[in-house]
Amino acid sequence: MLERVERLRQALADQGFGAVAVIAGGNLRYLTGLDLHGGMRVMMAFFPASGQPAFVLPALEEPRARAIVPYPMRFYPWTDAEGPAGALAECLHDLGLAGAQLTIEYGGMRVFELRGIEAAAPNIEIVDGTPLFAALRMSKGADELASMRAAAQIVEGALRAAVAQVRVGMTEIELAEIWEAAIRAAGSAPSFGTIIASGPNAANPHHTNSNRQLQRGDLVIMDGGALYEGYASDITRTIAIGEPARELRAIYELTLAANKAGRAAVAPGITPEQIDRAARGVITAGGYGPQFLHRTGHGLGIEVHEPPYLLEGNREPLTVGTTFTIEPGIYLAGLGGVRIEDDMVVSEAGGESLTTFERELIVI
Amino acid sequence: MLERVERLRQALADQGFGAVAVIAGGNLRYLTGLDLHGGMRVMMAFFPASGQPAFVLPALEEPRARAIVPYPMRFYPWTDAEGPAGALAECLHDLGLAGAQLTIEYGGMRVFELRGIEAAAPNIEIVDGTPLFAALRMSKGADELASMRAAAQIVEGALRAAVAQVRVGMTEIELAEIWEAAIRAAGSAPSFGTIIASGPNAANPHHTNSNRQLQRGDLVIMDGGALYEGYASDITRTIAIGEPARELRAIYELTLAANKAGRAAVAPGITPEQIDRAARGVITAGGYGPQFLHRTGHGLGIEVHEPPYLLEGNREPLTVGTTFTIEPGIYLAGLGGVRIEDDMVVSEAGGESLTTFERELIVI
Repeated sequence: MLERVERLRQALADQGFGAVAVIAGGNLRYLTGLDLHGGMRVMMAFFPASGQPAFVLPALEEPRARAIVPYPMRFYPWTDAEGPAGALAECLHDLGLAGAQLTIEYGGMRVFELRGIEAAAPNIEIVDGTPLFAALRMSKGADELASMRAAAQIVEGALRAAVAQVRVGMTEIELAEIWEAAIRAAGSAPSFGTIIASGPNAANPHHTNSNRQLQRGDLVIMDGGALYEGYASDITRTIAIGEPARELRAIYELTLAANKAGRAAVAPGITPEQIDRAARGVITAGGYGPQFLHRTGHGLGIEVHEPPYLLEGNREPLTVGTTFTIEPGIYLAGLGGVRIEDDMVVSEAGGESLTTFERELIVI
Repeated sequence: MLERVERLRQALADQGFGAVAVIAGGNLRYLTGLDLHGGMRVMMAFFPASGQPAFVLPALEEPRARAIVPYPMRFYPWTDAEGPAGALAECLHDLGLAGAQLTIEYGGMRVFELRGIEAAAPNIEIVDGTPLFAALRMSKGADELASMRAAAQIVEGALRAAVAQVRVGMTEIELAEIWEAAIRAAGSAPSFGTIIASGPNAANPHHTNSNRQLQRGDLVIMDGGALYEGYASDITRTIAIGEPARELRAIYELTLAANKAGRAAVAPGITPEQIDRAARGVITAGGYGPQFLHRTGHGLGIEVHEPPYLLEGNREPLTVGTTFTIEPGIYLAGLGGVRIEDDMVVSEAGGESLTTFERELIVI
């Protein structure tokens, strides 16, 4: 973990930043091992380009933080009675950042936290640290990849058990619970709220599981994930209850071809945009471009959605060890939908899929 | 729901604000009925003091939003390929807020969303809308209270079932799963991650459930909640596995007396600080003031933590219909802890506890 802090320090120094502020969440977990939930209480770790890291946090959390952080850190606890302003001002004063640039997490930090920093240190310039963290975390180490492989195996084992129990008349909510129970039985937990979207509901990529009963002729999108040692998997398979109508079978085969083309495009030096185009091109050529409603995929790791995002305009070349999903889909309003999602890692040889569950249409 | 929007408009006009920006979360649910998750995509509803509300959102979410929002609203969808900047600029231009004050959610809005507004409309002054929403949502209507009563009944029924299954040798994680399964079996879902803290683990108010096995002599803190129609309950009871040691029994009785004193202090016009003092005074008088590590309680409703917060310094008088927890606790490092939490509503007559599960120590 100290190696991660060293890499962060180097990046801060290289880019001329004075420090980074990290709130509760994935980046804090990555740098400290602490799995904290911020709520409305100010909880902020500071990593300067040189010198000891510092942590402003509720006094309640201090013992746990001291026990878990595996390197020296200076703590600035505050109580509910005091409020956080004094601790934050003292910490920022001690860090000596006047006139320097402080990078923060634009995607996670909330306005009350930003205003807290601004009030405590009006002479610090605040800049977006999102690219810094993306560069730090995108390429996974061997230990991280081992956890992601395990997370993929767990969700696939549970998916196999759930698919075996699919029956006409079962509701979406029941099927989601069966899958999640199997994930829990493996000693894991869902990495996000499982999505089961059946029949016409499958036309909505962000469907909320309902009491709709599975029927003959349905396509059923099953999208779920598991956690292992804090790392996530995220897989989608679409199954059929009885042989589907001709157009549904056709969009299944087209989505599968897009998934394959996307996976085949993965290699070091390739850009997310190129992978998006490879997958999207297949669907567009098949006449369903406007029905592929979302980007081709997203980074995966400590968080279920993290950089890199696979979409037009992302031209940052991929490096070995970078992990992300490839999940093309076609959605036909009123009829149904298909999505086929795999978890990929960029390897020296090209790309490897961490998820290997069969991709041919399963007809129940 | 339109009545809520009308009250918001009135409050905006009374306080001279031009509009409020609302991101995905509890306030959006309260005002629109939409249960959305923002992620990293800009999703922001604007309610002006006069004129039609407007909604900047991913194009994917537009059909659902149109189907659910029960009053006219103007939509500004954007696609991943376009990005949100254009839609946001057009929306803010149409709202005509130049020179006006825009209130935002300091506790929920993230910096990238704030920067998006600032870039789209540099001539708008941004102010904290937290007090506005607190005033709007703190006092619950009859329909909201009915949901909260149901949520309390569900979690209490499930707690009864879980307590009946407590055995020596069971792990904290197993007991949490039993309780959560009973909540789900009632057609509900946990309103937050159930906490089971046993033996010395109970000395940490923010304990993470572990594989520690319950033992004779343990106090076991059980803290959980359920959802009903989007409203939460949140209850804590502490049980004993066999008769506890003398000091643990003593802190149980002291915490119970503090819980009673806190509940007895509730009445219209009383301040959260007064309730905090009533409960805390009992524990301080008993010699355990420093071991009561947190505030006395928090508001409860659509969110598990919302205003009002019951702590020193909060002198906003309570009004009829306001709902919150009262949850004094005593935590003895290395030995164990006690917390007894009820969900209260301010009534004309004083206060009523929505949770009625027995409070005398249950010895298994």
